[in-house]
Amino acid sequence: MSTVGKKQGPVAAVLERLESEEPAAINRLIEWLRIPSISTDPAYKEDVKTAAEWAAAQLRQAGLTVEVLPTGTKEKPGHPIVMARSARGPEYRGPHVLFYGHYDVQPVDPVNLWESAPFEPVMKEAVPGGPGRRLIARGASDDKGQVMMFLESLRAWKQVSGLAAGGVEFTVMLEGEEESGSTNLEAFVSARVAELKKCRVCLISDTGMLGRDRPAITYGVRGLTYTEVVLHGPDQDLHSGLWGGRMPNPANELVKIMAQLWDADRRVTIPGFYDQVRPITDKERSAWRGLGIDINEELKGIGLPPESDVGEKGYTSIERAWARPTAEINGIVGGYTGKGAKTVIPAHASAKVSFRLVADQEPAKIRDAFFAWCRQHTPPGCRWEFIDHSGGYGVTVPTDSPALAAAARAIERAVGKRPELIKSGGSIPVAGLLKSVLGIDTIFMGFALDDDRVHSPNEKFELACYRMGAKSHAVLIDELRSLGGE
Amino acid sequence: MSTVGKKQGPVAAVLERLESEEPAAINRLIEWLRIPSISTDPAYKEDVKTAAEWAAAQLRQAGLTVEVLPTGTKEKPGHPIVMARSARGPEYRGPHVLFYGHYDVQPVDPVNLWESAPFEPVMKEAVPGGPGRRLIARGASDDKGQVMMFLESLRAWKQVSGLAAGGVEFTVMLEGEEESGSTNLEAFVSARVAELKKCRVCLISDTGMLGRDRPAITYGVRGLTYTEVVLHGPDQDLHSGLWGGRMPNPANELVKIMAQLWDADRRVTIPGFYDQVRPITDKERSAWRGLGIDINEELKGIGLPPESDVGEKGYTSIERAWARPTAEINGIVGGYTGKGAKTVIPAHASAKVSFRLVADQEPAKIRDAFFAWCRQHTPPGCRWEFIDHSGGYGVTVPTDSPALAAAARAIERAVGKRPELIKSGGSIPVAGLLKSVLGIDTIFMGFALDDDRVHSPNEKFELACYRMGAKSHAVLIDELRSLGGE
Repeated sequence: MSTVGKKQGPVAAVLERLESEEPAAINRLIEWLRIPSISTDPAYKEDVKTAAEWAAAQLRQAGLTVEVLPTGTKEKPGHPIVMARSARGPEYRGPHVLFYGHYDVQPVDPVNLWESAPFEPVMKEAVPGGPGRRLIARGASDDKGQVMMFLESLRAWKQVSGLAAGGVEFTVMLEGEEESGSTNLEAFVSARVAELKKCRVCLISDTGMLGRDRPAITYGVRGLTYTEVVLHGPDQDLHSGLWGGRMPNPANELVKIMAQLWDADRRVTIPGFYDQVRPITDKERSAWRGLGIDINEELKGIGLPPESDVGEKGYTSIERAWARPTAEINGIVGGYTGKGAKTVIPAHASAKVSFRLVADQEPAKIRDAFFAWCRQHTPPGCRWEFIDHSGGYGVTVPTDSPALAAAARAIERAVGKRPELIKSGGSIPVAGLLKSVLGIDTIFMGFALDDDRVHSPNEKFELACYRMGAKSHAVLIDELRSLGGE
Repeated sequence: MSTVGKKQGPVAAVLERLESEEPAAINRLIEWLRIPSISTDPAYKEDVKTAAEWAAAQLRQAGLTVEVLPTGTKEKPGHPIVMARSARGPEYRGPHVLFYGHYDVQPVDPVNLWESAPFEPVMKEAVPGGPGRRLIARGASDDKGQVMMFLESLRAWKQVSGLAAGGVEFTVMLEGEEESGSTNLEAFVSARVAELKKCRVCLISDTGMLGRDRPAITYGVRGLTYTEVVLHGPDQDLHSGLWGGRMPNPANELVKIMAQLWDADRRVTIPGFYDQVRPITDKERSAWRGLGIDINEELKGIGLPPESDVGEKGYTSIERAWARPTAEINGIVGGYTGKGAKTVIPAHASAKVSFRLVADQEPAKIRDAFFAWCRQHTPPGCRWEFIDHSGGYGVTVPTDSPALAAAARAIERAVGKRPELIKSGGSIPVAGLLKSVLGIDTIFMGFALDDDRVHSPNEKFELACYRMGAKSHAVLIDELRSLGGE
């Protein structure tokens, strides 16, 4: 590629600086990981705030102007958002870039499956007996570790050039509610449209690579609708001997209803569910096949044999992950779940059901269709309670924009490998929000691995990934510095 | 009825004694209820033992010879069984009677639904604004309150006649594992066959009446098989964005499988499930109809409208409760069940599934058939873990035995109303065990009410019920004293 190696100037010093600073940077990351910023659980409210302040301090050290701003309302306050800005340097003519990341983390249960305490980071071999190391902690990869790559590239550019972000005009927005539905983000962004509209493109590091030596840029993520449905029957728990077989047991009835969410072809049965789904193009199908992803190997990594490669009929595993919507039970509970036996018929049973959505499905429409479908299946004399844990639109961004090309060049210069163009089955609702409210596209430049166990016990981030990401972000700043005007 | 009122002698003094002692007796019951003897939870092991010792002391005070005997093995000890014996009085010629009861109680969750602490008994109006009082505590009805009726009748007979049990030859057996599957009872009884075979009939107070003013003798109870099945999928919890729709989600798969337990007529689909079911006779059908039980009123009592009267097609609610087998999910759990959202695919999901059985179904056969059925539905790449929480045979006893006639006379003399002959949907596995090991039938003479909330929050026992039961047991001892030889 013609651009590789042609850039000179401060970037070489920045990369050197990143290398020499790495041990200190990892210690900083460990400090951040020790703060249990679980946004979904009110018990950690203060910790979430502490994690925000911590990030704000890093950004200030990198020369940015920083504010930690409240979200929500007086009655229902949310977690704060860290907003930071770098001034435009004298030579910079490129676009104003919005960097988005999140400093909150997923809950840690089942905590007994963690090999070390989730908020006491430990370092182990990357793979047993292999080279490199991995850092194990909740948030190590998702998303503190990935945000840290950017923060450290900012720090190095400031140290080398004396300019915040090397003179590139950045708005940094670090959210504290990404893992709990980004409840207050839309209102926050909407209240700052005039200011945020100055940004031309968004940059997010919350996605993955195709493998340890296969960096990637993600050009699409799925949307999400996350719901909880509670089926209420009798007004009290009952003795299953006296009442069994005589009335609707909410646990029996809930499984009977939820089982009908899928047909024999594993397609979702909610009427209209697929109406807005954008079909996969032949070009995409063939490009994805060309990536040579080994599904059996991936399944092996989660302890499943090849015959577990099941899903919506007519699509490959990758097609299902990147371009087909799903319905999944993320949690179900009803009745006695302790040790031993209790012959009870529960008064209610509930399920957390989420839907991954693809372009051009609308989250609110799918949520409403699901609730209506539940209502149509109400057992005699029972009633539903519906909870919307929110979600967001999926996005697919153009693969031919100057910003995406700059990111691809940055990765190739930093890592020595041209990044693959991939999609992700996960959801980054902020991208859909920024597209609809500000009209801007997002470049997903992430360095996680599929086996990082994000959202699971023993989450980890490999130091080699951190290194690639920090360098790539540093070079991207260099690329942005030399991009033509707005 | 010709026998009513014809008996005289010490029984009148015993009944007076019961009346004057009632406040003290209720205080004794409260003392017992304060001991949290939850047998299924190992955390309460010492409390279970304390509750056994407490009952033993009462029996000693009533003049019986008492032992608190260990159960289980050295490696896996069970909860103790209280065994007591009364010597045959000089004039007694009747049968040796085995009294069985249990001093352990159900778990208390969901504890937040209790209006008062489960082990801090409180007294309230029996019904709001109505006469009488009820005692609220875990075990108030099931079974400490009901056992207490017998213990207090023994105490009164001893005080009046100077003889333990008024001279009737009793073996008293109080179990501490009834609510956790009676794991060690069969071995315990089998090891004492020679001694226990001397008993001619068993008496149990763990059943209910047909209404506040409708005493009853129960001539049949259902059997039980209680199982737990765990469906294991991947070897770790997964991110539902990365893995949703690409492999078998154990929570999805478990509900899909369990939903097939019933067909559209709400019949259990396990092959062979109904093979051994004894059909309901026309005589029973008509007798039960004649009881005039108002199902709509019963449903109203648990907060359900008339249309909730659903169950196996072709049978009335009472027929389903008393003579048809069931399959019920008593507990189900998988994935994230805390507050808020977590986009996880759980590594496993599990269900506690119990079956109420009727004559002549065999618990082990039904358990094996269910596990085999689960195996046939194993999703690709998943595996099952099966747990047997045990159970027991159902029983139906002859309605024309001298002992049952004596019990019916006793109730009529004590309460002034002829008892109805009913069955129960609940299970008292010991009755089946005693039938098969010792060959003896059981008289179920219980005074609970359907709305006692046994196994549920706010369990209660009404003082009027206690009074009827204590008197009936006292008069039964009188009836037994005058029954002809063995």
